Amino acid sequence: MIQPNVIELVESAHGGNRRALARLLTYVERGGPIAAKTLEAANNYIGNAYIVGITGPPGAGKSTIVDQLTHTFRSENQSIGVLAVDPTSPFSGGAFLGDRVRMQHHFLDPQVFIRSMATRGNSGGLARMANGAIRVMDAANLNVVLVETVGVGQTELDVMKAVDTLIVVMVPEAGDGIQALKAGLIESADIFVVNKADREGSQRMEGNLEAMLSMAEKHPWWRPPIVKTEAHQGKGIDSLYELIQAHKKALAESSRLQEKRIQRNREEFIRALKEGLVDIVNLVARDERGFASLIAKIEEGKKDPIAAAYDLLGNGEEFRKWLSDLEKRSQ
Amino acid sequence: MIQPNVIELVESAHGGNRRALARLLTYVERGGPIAAKTLEAANNYIGNAYIVGITGPPGAGKSTIVDQLTHTFRSENQSIGVLAVDPTSPFSGGAFLGDRVRMQHHFLDPQVFIRSMATRGNSGGLARMANGAIRVMDAANLNVVLVETVGVGQTELDVMKAVDTLIVVMVPEAGDGIQALKAGLIESADIFVVNKADREGSQRMEGNLEAMLSMAEKHPWWRPPIVKTEAHQGKGIDSLYELIQAHKKALAESSRLQEKRIQRNREEFIRALKEGLVDIVNLVARDERGFASLIAKIEEGKKDPIAAAYDLLGNGEEFRKWLSDLEKRSQ
Repeated sequence: MIQPNVIELVESAHGGNRRALARLLTYVERGGPIAAKTLEAANNYIGNAYIVGITGPPGAGKSTIVDQLTHTFRSENQSIGVLAVDPTSPFSGGAFLGDRVRMQHHFLDPQVFIRSMATRGNSGGLARMANGAIRVMDAANLNVVLVETVGVGQTELDVMKAVDTLIVVMVPEAGDGIQALKAGLIESADIFVVNKADREGSQRMEGNLEAMLSMAEKHPWWRPPIVKTEAHQGKGIDSLYELIQAHKKALAESSRLQEKRIQRNREEFIRALKEGLVDIVNLVARDERGFASLIAKIEEGKKDPIAAAYDLLGNGEEFRKWLSDLEKRSQ
Repeated sequence: MIQPNVIELVESAHGGNRRALARLLTYVERGGPIAAKTLEAANNYIGNAYIVGITGPPGAGKSTIVDQLTHTFRSENQSIGVLAVDPTSPFSGGAFLGDRVRMQHHFLDPQVFIRSMATRGNSGGLARMANGAIRVMDAANLNVVLVETVGVGQTELDVMKAVDTLIVVMVPEAGDGIQALKAGLIESADIFVVNKADREGSQRMEGNLEAMLSMAEKHPWWRPPIVKTEAHQGKGIDSLYELIQAHKKALAESSRLQEKRIQRNREEFIRALKEGLVDIVNLVARDERGFASLIAKIEEGKKDPIAAAYDLLGNGEEFRKWLSDLEKRSQ
């Protein structure tokens, strides 16, 4: 394989070349050294896009809201990246990608860039890929990146940690939907949407959310508002848009946005490090190089598997030392 | 802290002392060296218990089935351990543990040992703890261990890998329930239960499962049967019990059960190793010892966080070498 010139591609994507952007996203998805090079090159151009996450239980109308928000941002002359992340089980089938059909009327608009990411059945590395994709879209000079996920698993929660404004979408009948949401999502929400607000129970859902908010710890500078929408009719989308702007403004005041991004950089590194180690251990498990005798003992039941792992890693001092030596050498 | 004599406690638990067993389970939950010692000591006594997993969507009636199966096993003079593992979000509240109230009539029976494990909001290590708990219950000479989880997350799937016979419980109206189930659970099921079979749709649910089974790859020696139950009335429980026995017998033939357990030992080690590494990286993230300069660069945006992790770990050769050296030294 000829080494692609990632630096040139990033420059080209930054200048508005969408095909270059598409190629770079493929590199990010591929993982490994090519992804690392891509992200390293992209890193010189990032920090300008505003990242908005939209999540909620299945069927809440997230895609429709993304579609409508795209319209609104476009009418303000903003360029948009849409990243749909789908880590759901094979049983949910193609419905999620099918929803993208609704975005078709944006396909001819070069200022709207749409990408779906899915790993059927194996969610390993999806959060890392998605967060990398957000960074590359940012480097490609898009003004806004809308990230959409179903809010049910750890992967989705990890992806949603990478956004500036997090919108959690509910529907009136989603009493069970709230329960299905991954713990931690509700707590991280910046804006709540009660979609399909013309349906029965929307008042009760709003009341439930209000009750939850009044119990939760608050930022003194931002209390997550609740907005009712009927996204199919476009109702409430302008209010939602204004709330996003208000949250953006509140974040920008003093250095909150910067602090949030600093913390995010750190968290993404730690997560990528963990995922990378897990990948390696998976490889070790597959070929056992230099590891066969211990694994044989464990398989035969002569050593307890969990105790063996504890014993090997001890209190972690050895591993910390290794990691720290590695860091020094890599500088 | 005076070092508890874990070896004596394991001997005592093996001899039938339930208080000793309870104490050992607390050590397993605590994690770290004390858990490792406990599991190491327990390892000398394990392999006699038969492990049955019961999982399915919320509201499928799993607890009732566990309760009824406990009766049946007791009527066959088997001693039972029940382990209820609850990794669900704080939003599901105490319902799960509340269900345990139904088991109250077993509380005076010394041959029924009941334990719940939950980590509210933080599922880290829960699979490791649960699998350790199963091993300790096995060492305590219980004939059967029934493990109950809600089948919605990776943790539950990991726990369910530790069982000999996996029962997946559905209800007629659980069309969405199937979708909510973690991918991989259906594929691993040894027996399907359609509970609340008097309700509308039980025929359709059975048909759906049949269709799924006929598409799925089969073991030539075991096709997962479907059994209808009305657990509240005790209907169908005897059939379920007999199917468990039949699966146990099919596994015991030739060396299938042994092979399954060998593979499980290996998988548990690999998972524990991964979890242990993740724990250490979390610690590193917290105190940054010997790591501050890299993290500072990442926080400031001078280095891409994901690329930094890739760079550090490279293709994993260094880490493999470290792991392999560590293994040699620990022998």
